[in-house]
Amino acid sequence: MADPLSRRDIDFLLHEWLDVTALTERERFSEHSRETFDDVLSLSADMAIELFATHNKKGDQNEPYVGEDGKVVLIDEVRTALAEFTKSGLIAGSFDESVGGLQLPSVVSKASLAWFQAANPSSSTYPFLTVGNANLLAEYGTPEQIDTWVRPMVEGRFYGTMCLSEPQAGSTLADITTKAVPADDGSWRLTGTKMWISAGEHELSENIVHLVLAKTPGAPAGVKGISLFIAPKYLPDGTRNDIALVGLNHKMGNRGTTNCLLNFGDGTHSPADEKGAVAYLVGEEHHGLMYMFHMMNEARIGVGFLATAIGYAGYLASLEYAKVRTQGRPLDNKDPSSPAIPIIDHADVRRMLLAQKSYVEGALALGLYASKLVDEEQTTEGEAAENAHTLLEVLTPIVKSWPSQWCLEANSLAIQVHGGYGYTKEFDVEQFYRDNRLNPIHEGAHGIHGLDLLGRKVVMNGGKGLQLLVGTITETVERGAAAGGPAADYATQLKAAADRLAEVTVALWSAGDVSVSLANSTVYLEAAGHVVISWIWLEQLLAVGEKTGDFYDGKRAAAQYFFRYELPKTGPQFDLLASLDRTTLDLEPAWL
Amino acid sequence: MADPLSRRDIDFLLHEWLDVTALTERERFSEHSRETFDDVLSLSADMAIELFATHNKKGDQNEPYVGEDGKVVLIDEVRTALAEFTKSGLIAGSFDESVGGLQLPSVVSKASLAWFQAANPSSSTYPFLTVGNANLLAEYGTPEQIDTWVRPMVEGRFYGTMCLSEPQAGSTLADITTKAVPADDGSWRLTGTKMWISAGEHELSENIVHLVLAKTPGAPAGVKGISLFIAPKYLPDGTRNDIALVGLNHKMGNRGTTNCLLNFGDGTHSPADEKGAVAYLVGEEHHGLMYMFHMMNEARIGVGFLATAIGYAGYLASLEYAKVRTQGRPLDNKDPSSPAIPIIDHADVRRMLLAQKSYVEGALALGLYASKLVDEEQTTEGEAAENAHTLLEVLTPIVKSWPSQWCLEANSLAIQVHGGYGYTKEFDVEQFYRDNRLNPIHEGAHGIHGLDLLGRKVVMNGGKGLQLLVGTITETVERGAAAGGPAADYATQLKAAADRLAEVTVALWSAGDVSVSLANSTVYLEAAGHVVISWIWLEQLLAVGEKTGDFYDGKRAAAQYFFRYELPKTGPQFDLLASLDRTTLDLEPAWL
Repeated sequence: MADPLSRRDIDFLLHEWLDVTALTERERFSEHSRETFDDVLSLSADMAIELFATHNKKGDQNEPYVGEDGKVVLIDEVRTALAEFTKSGLIAGSFDESVGGLQLPSVVSKASLAWFQAANPSSSTYPFLTVGNANLLAEYGTPEQIDTWVRPMVEGRFYGTMCLSEPQAGSTLADITTKAVPADDGSWRLTGTKMWISAGEHELSENIVHLVLAKTPGAPAGVKGISLFIAPKYLPDGTRNDIALVGLNHKMGNRGTTNCLLNFGDGTHSPADEKGAVAYLVGEEHHGLMYMFHMMNEARIGVGFLATAIGYAGYLASLEYAKVRTQGRPLDNKDPSSPAIPIIDHADVRRMLLAQKSYVEGALALGLYASKLVDEEQTTEGEAAENAHTLLEVLTPIVKSWPSQWCLEANSLAIQVHGGYGYTKEFDVEQFYRDNRLNPIHEGAHGIHGLDLLGRKVVMNGGKGLQLLVGTITETVERGAAAGGPAADYATQLKAAADRLAEVTVALWSAGDVSVSLANSTVYLEAAGHVVISWIWLEQLLAVGEKTGDFYDGKRAAAQYFFRYELPKTGPQFDLLASLDRTTLDLEPAWL
Repeated sequence: MADPLSRRDIDFLLHEWLDVTALTERERFSEHSRETFDDVLSLSADMAIELFATHNKKGDQNEPYVGEDGKVVLIDEVRTALAEFTKSGLIAGSFDESVGGLQLPSVVSKASLAWFQAANPSSSTYPFLTVGNANLLAEYGTPEQIDTWVRPMVEGRFYGTMCLSEPQAGSTLADITTKAVPADDGSWRLTGTKMWISAGEHELSENIVHLVLAKTPGAPAGVKGISLFIAPKYLPDGTRNDIALVGLNHKMGNRGTTNCLLNFGDGTHSPADEKGAVAYLVGEEHHGLMYMFHMMNEARIGVGFLATAIGYAGYLASLEYAKVRTQGRPLDNKDPSSPAIPIIDHADVRRMLLAQKSYVEGALALGLYASKLVDEEQTTEGEAAENAHTLLEVLTPIVKSWPSQWCLEANSLAIQVHGGYGYTKEFDVEQFYRDNRLNPIHEGAHGIHGLDLLGRKVVMNGGKGLQLLVGTITETVERGAAAGGPAADYATQLKAAADRLAEVTVALWSAGDVSVSLANSTVYLEAAGHVVISWIWLEQLLAVGEKTGDFYDGKRAAAQYFFRYELPKTGPQFDLLASLDRTTLDLEPAWL
């Protein structure tokens, strides 16, 4: 089996491009070195390949179910793999030493986690939700909450979830109806139903820490009335809290991750005199969504990595297949008695491989760049910290959405390279395709990120987000122009595209009607995403410089592919946006 | 459950656009009338909805398997539905009365069959392969072969297959190794292994008629040495032929259709002194591939319809969902206490629905247009017949590939409209997406059709194919220009795109190196496909004319969508092609 990710590429991105070892000069990371980073990555790769990749297919083919005792049954390999993962301490990668973490840079920690996501998207979801949950509580929890909930999560003994959606409220959290009422002891009681809760129930950890959005009595309508609560499966005294698994959702992919409909406070696990699941308020009432965004933003970057990782695994699997599978002859050889050639020698197969490479390596580079912004924000002050924060904010919708779209497309190409074999369960790529189809849906559906980018991120603080993005791209363009050769050509192309992005943004907001401005926000998201990935490819090309060898030539070829085949796709998208097209606005539902 | 197809749309295409009733003036169809056409379509819709759609999900969830007696087990509903289908006589739709057929126009017969494909892609595959098989034998078989094999297939008692691929030879049929040797009685004996044989084994029919490509002793190397044989599961005397099911392939989708690895002549079902499966030569030795193309071309159009039908079913399912699912508020309404609106009122959801509509209705229209060319070829003579034949030849790769790409994309959008629900097995759209992913793979993988279109079809007969296509488009452009309004605008756009297609074709072939000319043939296929579907949309718009009502406004909106959002995508594709880009040619495999 092919490796699910390329260590060579990760080393290039971390060291030859992002120079992450320089981070060890900052106080927060001063205990670390290139050597500790390398050790973490080697350990991650080995463990992911040996313990996680090995049960990826089995987990897909043996979906979790609810046993007769009402407990969720998963294949044994999940528990074994996660136990080793816990033992390794990798789950604690980016946490502060003060809560038991390794205090690694986020960029290194994410590269470590990507190995597990690539090897087994479903099994890796359990600890990764836990990390996001614990990070939120480490930021906003009381010292007591941190001791009670964060430490066991950092130790991998408790796992965490995020309980936002309800059956009637997914994209619109304003409409949640889960209720929280205060109890005499200062805790709260929750009643309501939460839907799509990944890792919402299982027996993999001693406890499950749910972070639940709910509304308190008299709260204002809409998102301003949302509060955040901790609701554990088991209370600190060991009794079962009244959180009931109503059912597991049966999904097309990502089948190894339980996805649950949960009832809070329906009496299933509660004495008759209790009303509601016991819960503890996080921070202040009505600020819940703001806190939750701490986890949501991290989860969005995490989904970007997940989509990237699955795409990467498919790319490497199809690359391996294309080298060994023989079929056909060169177009200029008509002799049918000559031997068949490996399919990698056909131009169209190379196109499909190079496209995948440009998508997955571009997406991985973007994800690591964004993760390094997290480190920059955390270890700098003043304007530098603010700029890192703002740039991360504007990039987040793209970091989540672009890989979800294009690394899924990579998985489709991986199937296509395999031909009929790719459509069968004998090979892995059909599962990758099914698993990856989740990513444009969860953590904010694709269209939601278009609204977020165009409706909020690029215009916030008087347009500071867009200015920073375009400014950052322009800086790369200048270095590209100075480098000459293909980099200079690409710089010219990229400059034009970035200018167009800025112009079109102004034109859209000049419409004077928010419905018109945002009518094609998804098209905007996709065009902006391609501009950003082009920039990331020029960045990589500049990091390659004059270096020689197959690896660097591969980077050159993928950059060339992206600038010739992909960036030009933005032209018609920007034309459509600039025209303030009203096709979908003028459409009557009855015409459909 | 939503209907899987729209009768209103089919009526529009058949009568308001293609004027198929005029075909009844031709001798071949003189027994028919608008009324008989309508009756066939009503019967098809009713039967598809009541007997086929009702077991589509069950067939997916209960994959065929080999029972202890070695027989293939399918869910009972498949047999029941197909028995009713047989009884109805619809399988005989387009066959000559002389062999027991209804002698319907192909265009009406395909519209009838599309109902079954939309309702249940897997179950419908059994009879539809049979039709293609019987059509080939009706054309090239001896009178005795027609009596023995075609009649029972037209009666629905025997089913047929096409056995082309082998484990080592799929896209390259030149490399098949199945051998045929003559027997004393004038029949032949086959030995070899065939892979990916849809409907290759089952108990649904009295017999299975395999059409098998094989090589005879001393045959020339390559495709010029291929002969075609009939190899039935049961010989005319009722004994079992030596064709053994080695295994069923387990697929991501299309699970209700058995897909088989078959051994011919391995001794499993044969007395020890026999060597090989009994087979009967079709036509002359070494002409097998030419005969097979009769079935392959029909199968390619059939796959186009299949992809379209699955896309259509997804469109209608997501449309129904979007009307009843509520979520969020208009962008200009910030009041969270106002009621949530149906998601169809959000611009981005409308975009996803309108995109689907433009893809599936465009694809259906193209498929029916192509089917009418079959009727034109059959019922005209001289230049008219030749032109119909040539235009059909040049369109076939697009009729197959465009729906396989874009109606799959429609299915992805149908999932996206459903949000998380669309990713679960509670709804139908995830199955549609899995089922449809097969279509870019079989009956010639996507890239093979690019080579067929650019490498053969547009250049054959001194470029006659392309001239005819561009000429036909130009005729529509002229009518569009004369119509004024949006049609005239679209006509201008289409003219430019068609001219560009012609120019780029010349530029590609001027390269003087077939590797360069064909390096991006898949991009060419996709660009040409978008030009053709734009033409088909302008055709539909002209058929709409000044008519009023929701249905016609829907056609106007979908045409507008296609010309504003889709056709412009061809600009960068043509630019890439015109540049004679060498990215994939210059790429070394070691760089990947």
